[in-house]
Amino acid sequence: MIKMTDEIEPRFVEESFINLNPIQRGGIASLAARKAVISYVDGYSICDYCLGCVNKIKKPPVEEFLTQVSEFLGMDYTILTNGCREAVYAVFHSLLKPDDTIVVDANRHYTTIVAAENIGLRIFEIENSGYPEFKINPDNYQRVFDEIKNKTGKYPKLALLTHIDGSYGNLVDAKKVSKICSDYKIPFLLNAAYSSGRMAVNGKNLGADFIATSCHKGWAIGGGNAGFLSITEKWRDKILRVSKEYEAKQLEILGCSTRGSVVPALLASFPYVTERIKHWDEEVEKTRFFIKGAEKLGLKQLGEKPHNHDLVLLETKLFHDISKKHKKGGYFLYHELRKRNITGIKPGLTKQFKASIYGLNKEQISYVLDAFKDIIEGR
Amino acid sequence: MIKMTDEIEPRFVEESFINLNPIQRGGIASLAARKAVISYVDGYSICDYCLGCVNKIKKPPVEEFLTQVSEFLGMDYTILTNGCREAVYAVFHSLLKPDDTIVVDANRHYTTIVAAENIGLRIFEIENSGYPEFKINPDNYQRVFDEIKNKTGKYPKLALLTHIDGSYGNLVDAKKVSKICSDYKIPFLLNAAYSSGRMAVNGKNLGADFIATSCHKGWAIGGGNAGFLSITEKWRDKILRVSKEYEAKQLEILGCSTRGSVVPALLASFPYVTERIKHWDEEVEKTRFFIKGAEKLGLKQLGEKPHNHDLVLLETKLFHDISKKHKKGGYFLYHELRKRNITGIKPGLTKQFKASIYGLNKEQISYVLDAFKDIIEGR
Repeated sequence: MIKMTDEIEPRFVEESFINLNPIQRGGIASLAARKAVISYVDGYSICDYCLGCVNKIKKPPVEEFLTQVSEFLGMDYTILTNGCREAVYAVFHSLLKPDDTIVVDANRHYTTIVAAENIGLRIFEIENSGYPEFKINPDNYQRVFDEIKNKTGKYPKLALLTHIDGSYGNLVDAKKVSKICSDYKIPFLLNAAYSSGRMAVNGKNLGADFIATSCHKGWAIGGGNAGFLSITEKWRDKILRVSKEYEAKQLEILGCSTRGSVVPALLASFPYVTERIKHWDEEVEKTRFFIKGAEKLGLKQLGEKPHNHDLVLLETKLFHDISKKHKKGGYFLYHELRKRNITGIKPGLTKQFKASIYGLNKEQISYVLDAFKDIIEGR
Repeated sequence: MIKMTDEIEPRFVEESFINLNPIQRGGIASLAARKAVISYVDGYSICDYCLGCVNKIKKPPVEEFLTQVSEFLGMDYTILTNGCREAVYAVFHSLLKPDDTIVVDANRHYTTIVAAENIGLRIFEIENSGYPEFKINPDNYQRVFDEIKNKTGKYPKLALLTHIDGSYGNLVDAKKVSKICSDYKIPFLLNAAYSSGRMAVNGKNLGADFIATSCHKGWAIGGGNAGFLSITEKWRDKILRVSKEYEAKQLEILGCSTRGSVVPALLASFPYVTERIKHWDEEVEKTRFFIKGAEKLGLKQLGEKPHNHDLVLLETKLFHDISKKHKKGGYFLYHELRKRNITGIKPGLTKQFKASIYGLNKEQISYVLDAFKDIIEGR
């Protein structure tokens, strides 16, 4: 048997490493979240004051918190889910049957496809513009809706847009998509995994019927995984339907979804999250500074330009050229960065990789750029 | 807006309170788990070394750990799930269609019903023996299988047994049930939420096709929620089916299920869990000592006798009598216990309540019994 206690190396700590992994930068636990996680470390400890469902707990004030999250996101109801993918699945499963047709953008997270496959849906994709920007044109939703009608005799049952995608960090005009969906009377699900918690997202303004949020990705919580499913009043009975036998229990989340220390951590991080989104412009400006610096070194930013999100895909031929001659091959970059206390670039990648400097200051960003420079110049 | 940071009271700590809540006693985080949770506190930090799926991570050795869990539980494959209910749902959803028939025991957790309702299954229940023992007789599975055949023309598609139920703490002979299921060729799902991690559970010996485990309930982890779905080879392709587009991604867990600090916490707690199950006899003996003490005070244990699990339902008319005259009414007991640093009894309950002394020593158990005595005698 593995002696796990001895063999699990403590993970690097944020204070001593710079982690460039975009899926992690928005999920770095706030200090308040860390305290909450430690206080609620035992299994089911959030259930100390259970009133039938985690979404209804009054102490700590989970119920009130979720009401505030709904206001914050411009939606009518918000429930906790195990994560963003589970929120997307819950919408699919509540509304759709096998062989129903949905439309999604080509830049969608893989879990959109997996959730749809798990139900047996037919998926049509809105293509992106291809290299180098890979942009989604909202107008294409209309064209694809019509194509599906011609092909299948019916309009699709649901449309999904990935607000900010996880490959290129492109921001799509959700309002334009929702306008088309509304004209065609097609329910509109916005995947806000990379936007909610970083930037202002208002479902009413954006015209979303449903918003799926990833809290471990964008809400600075610690511990386990959590998400939100936020909906408008219209969908209340379909999505929040309850058990016939247990009226406090919502079917789609099997009574309670995430039920650990992430819940108090979410409450604890909320003031921090609502404050940080006000500084989103500064994050975008820092990201552009990072991109400018990287391009000066001979790297190339893919995805939309100018860039509107901290997730940046860099095409890095210079690193790839080095890897061909390096004894560590493709892994050299990971090791060279790690030596410089920089982590979060997937081991083995050199042709292109994703990076985020979200939450770092300019000094730290310059440190990263200098590290890139030194590695390129073989220092 | 709630100032969450200020308003969330730190939760009582295990060191200063005795928590009698049965859903929590098996989930008290081991020291090793606490360390792991703090080290992996940031969102998605387990994904630092992702190889396409959390179940395949080699560092920390998640993949090897899950292989060991399968051996430990006498099964062929184990995957991480968000919890026990999600493991049960995954089996239902993989194997069954709306209107399919299943058999469950009447002592099943509410989530069994909710998961079945969410798919639209027809549920038949094996009744229990009623007051005061509420026992499930394994032989009744055969009778109910035949009744269903007579009524619907077909045998049920699946049978579920709750190994230890969460209402009375009754242990059912799973081997007898599995023998009947095997004779009728009906797949057998064992809900081991209250057994796995506390006592030895071997799926091969018990004849289970599937075992669902709750890790926050029984595996001493900290942080968020987690479970296992363990299966035999026969069910591999049905349960672990993967996406057509993403072959590393299992459909039923949407690619990855629990993906937070609970995963390293599980690995860290494993040596502790494998050790503690060897001392299960001592826990049962302590529980019987607790029951004997409580009955001496005039309280009555419901559920099977002699009792074989730490979850104990007590009928407590003496407390209820006091509550009728007390100015705090039904809440008096909660407050009286809390004054004595005992918690975990649901506020408002006095007629009967569940308690567990799992992991407490005899001195602590006597302290709890003395507290009961003092409250009964009005001290």
